[in-house]
Amino acid sequence: MNQITFASSNVSKFKEVDAFLGKYNIKVNLFRVELREIQSDSLEEIATEKAVAAYGIIKEKLIVEDTGLFIHALNDFPGSYSSFVLRTIGNIGILELLSSKTDRSATFKTVIAFNNGASTRIFTGTVSGVISPVIAKDGWGYDPIFIPLGHDGKVYIKTYGEMSIERKNVISHRSQALRKFIEWYTELI
Amino acid sequence: MNQITFASSNVSKFKEVDAFLGKYNIKVNLFRVELREIQSDSLEEIATEKAVAAYGIIKEKLIVEDTGLFIHALNDFPGSYSSFVLRTIGNIGILELLSSKTDRSATFKTVIAFNNGASTRIFTGTVSGVISPVIAKDGWGYDPIFIPLGHDGKVYIKTYGEMSIERKNVISHRSQALRKFIEWYTELI
Repeated sequence: MNQITFASSNVSKFKEVDAFLGKYNIKVNLFRVELREIQSDSLEEIATEKAVAAYGIIKEKLIVEDTGLFIHALNDFPGSYSSFVLRTIGNIGILELLSSKTDRSATFKTVIAFNNGASTRIFTGTVSGVISPVIAKDGWGYDPIFIPLGHDGKVYIKTYGEMSIERKNVISHRSQALRKFIEWYTELI
Repeated sequence: MNQITFASSNVSKFKEVDAFLGKYNIKVNLFRVELREIQSDSLEEIATEKAVAAYGIIKEKLIVEDTGLFIHALNDFPGSYSSFVLRTIGNIGILELLSSKTDRSATFKTVIAFNNGASTRIFTGTVSGVISPVIAKDGWGYDPIFIPLGHDGKVYIKTYGEMSIERKNVISHRSQALRKFIEWYTELI
């Protein structure tokens, strides 16, 4: 069975990555580490630097990820600073900021960065959606307020938070990036 | 006349630093550069890394600064991410986030980092205050919404934004950090 190391401090992300890659018969090893991130509006730049830093520690091929929620009426806030914003003003703060806005559209984006010590490769996934007017009881991160729009034109009525991990993994930004990664990776190994 | 290089991309900050250090007969040379910052809750850590990075470019003794507004009811948001928050949700967003809060207290903090290639030295200044319910017409950054509380117990009725640069420089977080720096620096040179 093939395997890959996922360097992250976020166990919820690990569970999604593990559930997704498990279907492709890839074993995911979590390397729990708080990697220093640079301040940048670019998830690609942040993920690339994190992958290089993680390889420097682990010395084996690995993936890292970085995810941001880009709310259009808020000039793409919280974007690549989503983690900080979540632990300070939280989803309640996001809803307050949108209370005076009519445009509630947002983009959820994940960047997966693979590094093998020689080079870094980037895979991205994005999902368009809207910010719910209420916070769902279930889910982690921004999942309780993000309602994805289906690529088939179908509008989902549930937030990510109210979906099972399997359902979320069919459509999510994170799984899109992982799918691109796995298509490339399975040819490589 | 002694001089020091101030590495920054922010001309408004330069004007304050120049006005302040000019009184001590120190000429300030602005080196306009957008320095990469790390993601950290610590202004000290960010400023230290910036100072090291700037020395690597300029190769002469210099100061950098990093400033954050820490709003207590928002778990110290926007803190060390003040620049990003200002250019996305802005002061309007801050007032919206505080509309449901009774505690409007905040701390404005500046860290000055000096680097001469051999070592880094840190100087800090903080001012307590409250966030105004309205945005003043004048000032830059968070100055139009920050009302400082005097150390003499006197409550100022103006925001930083409504003060002259000279008046602001008597009391501000930035000038406090600069005063500590200059006391040390004038002994050194």
